[in-house]
Amino acid sequence: MIQRAFILSTGDELTTGKVVDTNANYLADKLNEIGLDLVGVITVGDISERLEWAWKTAMELADVVISTGGIGPTADDLTTETVARLTGKKLWFDDATADKMRRLFASGGRKMPENNLKQALFPETAVIIPNALGTAPGFRMEVPQKNHIAHLVVLPGVPREMKPMMEQIVIPWLVDSRGHDKIHVSQTFQTYGISESGLDEAVAGLIKPEEARVSFRASFPQISLRISVEGSPDEAQARLDELSQRVRERISEFVYGEGDVTMEEVVGRLLTERHLTLAIAESCTGGLIGHRITNVAGASNYLLADLVAYSNQSKIKLLAVSEETLKNHGAVSEQCVLEMAAGARKVCGADIGLATSGIAGPGGGTPEKPVGTVCIALAADGFATARTYKMWGTRDWIKTLASQVALDWIRRYLLGLPMGAGLFRR
Amino acid sequence: MIQRAFILSTGDELTTGKVVDTNANYLADKLNEIGLDLVGVITVGDISERLEWAWKTAMELADVVISTGGIGPTADDLTTETVARLTGKKLWFDDATADKMRRLFASGGRKMPENNLKQALFPETAVIIPNALGTAPGFRMEVPQKNHIAHLVVLPGVPREMKPMMEQIVIPWLVDSRGHDKIHVSQTFQTYGISESGLDEAVAGLIKPEEARVSFRASFPQISLRISVEGSPDEAQARLDELSQRVRERISEFVYGEGDVTMEEVVGRLLTERHLTLAIAESCTGGLIGHRITNVAGASNYLLADLVAYSNQSKIKLLAVSEETLKNHGAVSEQCVLEMAAGARKVCGADIGLATSGIAGPGGGTPEKPVGTVCIALAADGFATARTYKMWGTRDWIKTLASQVALDWIRRYLLGLPMGAGLFRR
Repeated sequence: MIQRAFILSTGDELTTGKVVDTNANYLADKLNEIGLDLVGVITVGDISERLEWAWKTAMELADVVISTGGIGPTADDLTTETVARLTGKKLWFDDATADKMRRLFASGGRKMPENNLKQALFPETAVIIPNALGTAPGFRMEVPQKNHIAHLVVLPGVPREMKPMMEQIVIPWLVDSRGHDKIHVSQTFQTYGISESGLDEAVAGLIKPEEARVSFRASFPQISLRISVEGSPDEAQARLDELSQRVRERISEFVYGEGDVTMEEVVGRLLTERHLTLAIAESCTGGLIGHRITNVAGASNYLLADLVAYSNQSKIKLLAVSEETLKNHGAVSEQCVLEMAAGARKVCGADIGLATSGIAGPGGGTPEKPVGTVCIALAADGFATARTYKMWGTRDWIKTLASQVALDWIRRYLLGLPMGAGLFRR
Repeated sequence: MIQRAFILSTGDELTTGKVVDTNANYLADKLNEIGLDLVGVITVGDISERLEWAWKTAMELADVVISTGGIGPTADDLTTETVARLTGKKLWFDDATADKMRRLFASGGRKMPENNLKQALFPETAVIIPNALGTAPGFRMEVPQKNHIAHLVVLPGVPREMKPMMEQIVIPWLVDSRGHDKIHVSQTFQTYGISESGLDEAVAGLIKPEEARVSFRASFPQISLRISVEGSPDEAQARLDELSQRVRERISEFVYGEGDVTMEEVVGRLLTERHLTLAIAESCTGGLIGHRITNVAGASNYLLADLVAYSNQSKIKLLAVSEETLKNHGAVSEQCVLEMAAGARKVCGADIGLATSGIAGPGGGTPEKPVGTVCIALAADGFATARTYKMWGTRDWIKTLASQVALDWIRRYLLGLPMGAGLFRR
């Protein structure tokens, strides 16, 4: 039975500090969700002896070892051969994988380099884990240890390839292998506008430790709260539903969605349901709001245009902001964003106009309008409002936070909620 | 002499996936910068036996072990007592630290809770590392191993407290203790337009393993190649320069920058140097090009506007695309992007107009124009060109790839290089 897990993160980019290891965080969260005990994470570079040590150590300590990275086509990709050597298995060449790779290259009109064939090699007894989005499949295999069986799971390091493999294949297999007497069910609330400690306080005492596990996950600028229940198949879901309802009632004002949903998806659904169209006018956010809105398939049903008017002249020309407003109030002012929102709405013939203007920094701040000053406005039929926020952090933080607040304004407008006044309740 | 390093990241928030471990990344980068060899990172939760195992393992394998977390005032902060137990040292109470804590609390008008006194306990022989921004000081101590001395460095987990302690105290001490016979130097090439395996083949044989380590890092859609040299202070840099020149000559056509630089920064520098302005017209990329351009501080010096014309009507109204073009060729056509680029340039009075239109999917594809079909155009004084690409992958991939190709077009135009015909050489 699989209970103890270990994560191996491999790659020189991790041990030299070039890349933050988000894979380990993602995997830790997924393993936690299904109730496995993560004994530890080991990170090593692309060096054969260190990889070998890491695998050996992890196998001894855990029932399942999940590794990411090191299965690409290049000479510094050492995972497969290390696992084979360590477990005393020969490598076999999988013709079906090689054929699939050749077809993938051919469909792009390209010839496959010979070194890619390395990715069709697997240790004997390995079960291939297909990779729908890349050339490198993963694999899993069982390796007997002194007192337990270690299950090795080898996945690619590229997050967008690794995640679907984990969610569609590895997790269901893990849930199956974990034993059948108990099931795990969980519910996630996506919140915005409250800090992690604020959220923790808000739900304090609602759920007893023996009823469920409550965990928080901060992914700036939003926090998700998850309730994980373990129990018998006929009881666990009912308990989760009951606990979810308690939490829902307590924090509804901060919840913009339940389950695995983004703010832009929620906004998109609301606009679609109401058959409304949107026009955006961005300054400091520089296209990020449009980018987020268009990350959702079907955005063309509601987004007419996003006018990123970065210069004053563009604000005048494209959005009919008046020269007087710019002169008297400046580009970062409620007056200006009101005109931008109205202008975008009018020029595109949209139902809703949304506008941002601010100082993302690091330069451009003044004592009256320091870096982080951001104005947001929303205009609709018989409706126009604007507000000035004091945000903080680096340029990308300020852009991200401003885009989140602006998207939340659309959600709040469509649901008839008041626009958020502050940024975070703590 | 200190050469091999190990990082310990401790805390349940890491093993349950609540928090991404940015401390390990920060420390890895700092250690790499001063030429230490990071053997590995171990992450464990706040569990006594696991902490003990992690410390023991790290001490055996490295000359210096840097740990973050586990020195707070609560019951689950176990690092100090674990280190003391493991090294057979008694804990002593440091009055000066306790006094400082009391003063810190008093200055905030608060009484210090008794459990805070735990933070004034240190293993015998430890040297205290003061913490200017929090109550928990760190410490370091020496622990003899079989064949070497392990230096333990214990720091708090809060990044804003840990970082100044690292930079002001630990790094200078490490540089002193590192020994002076060998240094590490490295050079990074940012490439685009060639796959990782293609790059590997392109530089194959150029550098012998004993001369330097070559590593690749893929961060879709770009790949970086790094040459790392270890050697004596008077020889290493010269060897790196010579090897870099070999690599530069071989792959120059794919290198858009050297060092830690993004495509949008390179484009920004070129536009700034040439005093040229840019107007963008986006359709399928939905604002991503503008977002990337405005991630660079100072983008307002060259970006006038980004018109995300998502609907046909917006293309006509905002960019003066002709209805006939849309009727005869469709929105995803070279004719359309040429008119979009020219329209954006004209309406904004910009030197360069850049346009994208395509089918990002998953819906909207046809047999003639499948998902992934993307047209790009660039218009400038006496210059106009467009091309159709067949891209692949998910919606976000296609958006990302299209934005990269489009940004690279600006770079190529400004440098007088031909526009990239294919997407990737493999």
